[in-house]
Amino acid sequence: MSPKALDYESLNENVKKVQYAVRGELYLRASELQNEGKKIIFTNVGNPHALGQKPLTFPRQVVALCQAPFLLDDPNVGLLFPADAIAKAKHYLSLTSGGLGAYSDSRGLPGIRKEVAEFIERRDGYPSDPELIFLTDGASKGVMQILNTIIRGAGDGILVPVPQYPLYSAAISLFGGSLVPYYLEETANWGLDINDLRQSVAVARSNGITVRAMVIINPGNPTGQCLSEANLREILRYCYQENLVLLGDEVYQQNIYQDERPFVSARKVLMGMGPPISKEVQLVSFHTVSKGYWGECGQRGGYFEMTNIPPKTVDEIYKVASVSLSPNVPAQIFMGLMVNPPKPGDISYQQFVRESKGIIESLRRRARMMTDGFNSCRNVVCNFTEGAMYSFPQIRLPPRAIEAAKRAGKVPDVFYCLKLLEATGISTVPGSGFGQKEGVFHLRTTILPAEEDMPEIMTSFKKFNDEFMEQYEDHRGYSRM
Amino acid sequence: MSPKALDYESLNENVKKVQYAVRGELYLRASELQNEGKKIIFTNVGNPHALGQKPLTFPRQVVALCQAPFLLDDPNVGLLFPADAIAKAKHYLSLTSGGLGAYSDSRGLPGIRKEVAEFIERRDGYPSDPELIFLTDGASKGVMQILNTIIRGAGDGILVPVPQYPLYSAAISLFGGSLVPYYLEETANWGLDINDLRQSVAVARSNGITVRAMVIINPGNPTGQCLSEANLREILRYCYQENLVLLGDEVYQQNIYQDERPFVSARKVLMGMGPPISKEVQLVSFHTVSKGYWGECGQRGGYFEMTNIPPKTVDEIYKVASVSLSPNVPAQIFMGLMVNPPKPGDISYQQFVRESKGIIESLRRRARMMTDGFNSCRNVVCNFTEGAMYSFPQIRLPPRAIEAAKRAGKVPDVFYCLKLLEATGISTVPGSGFGQKEGVFHLRTTILPAEEDMPEIMTSFKKFNDEFMEQYEDHRGYSRM
Repeated sequence: MSPKALDYESLNENVKKVQYAVRGELYLRASELQNEGKKIIFTNVGNPHALGQKPLTFPRQVVALCQAPFLLDDPNVGLLFPADAIAKAKHYLSLTSGGLGAYSDSRGLPGIRKEVAEFIERRDGYPSDPELIFLTDGASKGVMQILNTIIRGAGDGILVPVPQYPLYSAAISLFGGSLVPYYLEETANWGLDINDLRQSVAVARSNGITVRAMVIINPGNPTGQCLSEANLREILRYCYQENLVLLGDEVYQQNIYQDERPFVSARKVLMGMGPPISKEVQLVSFHTVSKGYWGECGQRGGYFEMTNIPPKTVDEIYKVASVSLSPNVPAQIFMGLMVNPPKPGDISYQQFVRESKGIIESLRRRARMMTDGFNSCRNVVCNFTEGAMYSFPQIRLPPRAIEAAKRAGKVPDVFYCLKLLEATGISTVPGSGFGQKEGVFHLRTTILPAEEDMPEIMTSFKKFNDEFMEQYEDHRGYSRM
Repeated sequence: MSPKALDYESLNENVKKVQYAVRGELYLRASELQNEGKKIIFTNVGNPHALGQKPLTFPRQVVALCQAPFLLDDPNVGLLFPADAIAKAKHYLSLTSGGLGAYSDSRGLPGIRKEVAEFIERRDGYPSDPELIFLTDGASKGVMQILNTIIRGAGDGILVPVPQYPLYSAAISLFGGSLVPYYLEETANWGLDINDLRQSVAVARSNGITVRAMVIINPGNPTGQCLSEANLREILRYCYQENLVLLGDEVYQQNIYQDERPFVSARKVLMGMGPPISKEVQLVSFHTVSKGYWGECGQRGGYFEMTNIPPKTVDEIYKVASVSLSPNVPAQIFMGLMVNPPKPGDISYQQFVRESKGIIESLRRRARMMTDGFNSCRNVVCNFTEGAMYSFPQIRLPPRAIEAAKRAGKVPDVFYCLKLLEATGISTVPGSGFGQKEGVFHLRTTILPAEEDMPEIMTSFKKFNDEFMEQYEDHRGYSRM
């Protein structure tokens, strides 16, 4: 009998080509070890609540009330919920038609899209149109929809930074397009060099690829750098010259751990450049409730905002969004709350500020502890995490370790990360899952373990690493560089 | 300058080909009219809460507590929540790792997948494996993922019933496959004739299409019929003979409005057929929290269960699910509660039963009121809604109405539905959005308007319809048939 449609050999080849290391071999092995009773520290994915971060109280109160609207009529509701949470719940319920159980418009609730537009205007100083903002089940879903809209086939190329967050490579594979890598420069704090970018585009074109869009991740994942305004201007000018759509992954915009380079949105820079560039460059910007000091990953909420996208295209994107009816409504409310948090004078304001500052300041300290910890290890060098949630140290594997990996049938950084996992329970993602230059090896870890656990984790990492290096180093002369 | 990547003319052609009438021209016009202040009755989409259906209290209490876990430590919690809701919330929180704010495994929380498997076993009498159950953001997302896994290109055909729910046509267009229609027979209460099915497959094959899968919607959408066990056996035997994956859309399994043909799952029938068929036919079955007496559409929760799918394929499906990290966690808990509702003796049992029976019995009365209402109208004939949430009357348009539609540049049933909308505010979906035989016209409406509003809606419909017919009928001899 010939193979069936869901036998492996007859599946859609694009599905098979997808790679997603964040939940790949290392994650699967870590899950196995956990099932066997080993204590695992999951730093493979930016999932703060899974590592003990507490949710912000106020938004949870509001969404709980929206889920249980009958409580709003209960005379005892004030014993469990503050008055401003009650008022906010009523406000958000009034924006729905039928509460959280009703599908919203496929673009999300109009009232919340308006709140998002107002947030963008406050942030950037330029008005934003709610009709060009679509709410999504997390940013990833939005990125996938836009890439699916752009990619027509293998001849369409998407510029993606390397190292990159593998959502991009995975989605491009799934939709049958071509990833055109541009390399970030590790020695320049993961900066982007426009000349390298030009080079990448030239190579792709000589291979018959039509380069159609460019992805930036700012702050960077896994690399943690913040793009400067000057760099963003260069990028936008380049997109204008080369007729590229810019996809701005800005999900870490609240996660900034230094003061020299604050977050600047691509849209703000674009608007500031004036015509013709500000009127011509097509930009789609992504945001989420999963990151920042919210970390509400499990709720799956996000949005994208479109700039300079023609109405007929917006209609097409709306139509395709309609096929899955609507993003989940509770997370839309989280998004509303995120862009419109308690204000000075509100009952919950002090608590909200205390909780959010506590999280972001601790993340800043953890970013520093982790960078310093890695840099204290033998054959490990690591740029400081300026933003986002990750540390991406370079692991300088001795030739004998590389040979041992080859004998074990593993990519060298996978080999290293598996040994790390078995020895310490620390579950990371090998740099090869994000892309890296030939012969250079990294790992990605989140900076999310609880602050009080951090010293022990870094000690445990250092012990493993330094013993690993001791074991594999060629004592006849391999130097640390 | 050449078109940009997000200009309409350069978009992915598959995106442009997608059609989704449920939120198409009629819906957009209805939204416009609503914005202009007209009262609109949205019966275009099965969205019960939007039409006033109240959520079931118990599951909302549980999920509210899961959103606000700090309430569990509050001495006053018992004033607002019953003890069994508190216990259930603790139970579900214990199944998460980090509460609702943490990504779950990409297949959904293992503990809830186990509850789903137990539900399937109780329902069907055959064990089910939690490892083959994936939770999803609503059933649509699951259907789309499976179709994307199967479809390799335009040469791959998917058998879809016509009339069909346009999710299928839309997803097949989006993934670049070919829809192979098989017609349901209106005069046989929308039954499926295996000989017609054979005929459809033969035609597709003669056009070079490899038919790879078959979709059934049971109970039917938009057609409302329930498949008999005998019919399901025929279908499964056919899938076995022809090497087809069966996709069983069973989202309306709780929505049954007669006693002669209860819901029987495709999986139960398959298992009962014994080997080789029970071991060979690949089946994926879909369910949701959006329908039934829950109607929790806005939460976006669902699952699919795979039968006879090889582990390597399951791994691929898992990998692709991982790219968007996890389905939303609150809706996973709704799914757990749906498959594991309060039991006799629980504090909330009586109220839960009263609420759910109230909804389902009212739907049964509404199904009857709507069918009878349509059948009392001039040139309208309508099968009884045995199940699901829709009525799909045939509208026998007089030739002069068809000519008037052509002059207005509209498909005849779109013309009729637009006139209905303008006259009455009733927002339906033209039958052409679901597919119908040449020269035959329908509309789809949900049976969801509040029971007390139903007489007025049907009176208003009848008045419009009968006047429409009066206006367009050829009084020289067009007969009612």
